[in-house]
Amino acid sequence: MHRLYYSPGACSLAVHIVLEEVGVPYELELRSAANSEGTTTAEYLALNPKGRVPALTGVRGGAGGAPELLTEAVAIMLFLARSHPEAGLLPDDAAGEARCLEWLSWISVDLHGIGYGQLWRPHRFVSDEALYGAVQAKGRDNIRAGYDHIEKILSDGRDWAVPGQFTVVDAYLTVFWLWGRRIGLDMDAGWPVWQRLMTKVLDRPAVRRALAQEGLAS
Amino acid sequence: MHRLYYSPGACSLAVHIVLEEVGVPYELELRSAANSEGTTTAEYLALNPKGRVPALTGVRGGAGGAPELLTEAVAIMLFLARSHPEAGLLPDDAAGEARCLEWLSWISVDLHGIGYGQLWRPHRFVSDEALYGAVQAKGRDNIRAGYDHIEKILSDGRDWAVPGQFTVVDAYLTVFWLWGRRIGLDMDAGWPVWQRLMTKVLDRPAVRRALAQEGLAS
Repeated sequence: MHRLYYSPGACSLAVHIVLEEVGVPYELELRSAANSEGTTTAEYLALNPKGRVPALTGVRGGAGGAPELLTEAVAIMLFLARSHPEAGLLPDDAAGEARCLEWLSWISVDLHGIGYGQLWRPHRFVSDEALYGAVQAKGRDNIRAGYDHIEKILSDGRDWAVPGQFTVVDAYLTVFWLWGRRIGLDMDAGWPVWQRLMTKVLDRPAVRRALAQEGLAS
Repeated sequence: MHRLYYSPGACSLAVHIVLEEVGVPYELELRSAANSEGTTTAEYLALNPKGRVPALTGVRGGAGGAPELLTEAVAIMLFLARSHPEAGLLPDDAAGEARCLEWLSWISVDLHGIGYGQLWRPHRFVSDEALYGAVQAKGRDNIRAGYDHIEKILSDGRDWAVPGQFTVVDAYLTVFWLWGRRIGLDMDAGWPVWQRLMTKVLDRPAVRRALAQEGLAS
């Protein structure tokens, strides 16, 4: 059985949603990213030297740390979707899968690693604390630009992020939509097409279960 | 036939290597990332609104810009490898593929998007030019830390980045090893296990052809 190391509302939520969509049994283990105790204890670093969530047990291979631990949200989502094709979380051809990965990769680099990284982890970008504010301000600009990019892509009339079906991309987008609200952006007024997509996503039973288990309101 | 938009020695090199390994016919079109003319002209932005390389034509789907244009190096590499299983550039099971994607995702976020992003594109991280130096210095720290992480993973005796076969990960690592030399790091002394892997990679005919076509010495 898989165990997911997660922090409420972190990008691990996307993996949590995918686990619920897939419908296999799994365990949850809380490792809060909000304080240094959750993911940077000696015990957790022995399991996962990266000191981050999400991480999923029960995947063959892996180097260092816990045996069979898979890290990186993008890799975990693709793994679960590919291992459970019956859940229909990926298109069934290489081009459709590539369109999903094009979204996931761009989101993980530009929006999460850079934009939200700057806002919430400015120490990754400059050593001098006096400069954190400048990094965070630019992070907010990058997040807004990223959200505009998402809105533009979604505005061609498509039904889901990758047209034709709910995919892992819609699960991943959920995290960033909730984060937008968390940092005080007016998601409804600013990005209305994305908001309409989210209404559908947040109404899915699997998504509601994942949010409820993490103590989050939709 | 696919056309690859590339810039010599950029991360598009990894896609170029994969195309050579796969062995299908393709065209190359130079869009230098070293100056603003290559990837930010109105003409190129009409093709690829992201204004970056790599981008590959001939992949179904896509939104805006050129029809059937796929962006994001990670997505393009996975697409080519999955479309040509006979080339053996990915393990043939979901767990092995996930191990590849775990590498690719981490490299694209932490090493490329953040580390080299800070060093070569500091304007993405702060608005004030006076702060570029601080961002670049931290970028160099992040690059070295990332290289140490690579060295540690490779040091368990494995033959390739994902054990058992040359994969797209080895193609991607090639870019960052060459970049390390470009920024003046002593790759042989600093990361000897990675250097030994690269000796094997750079000896592959497909890798030599891609480097030669981009005017790069190995």
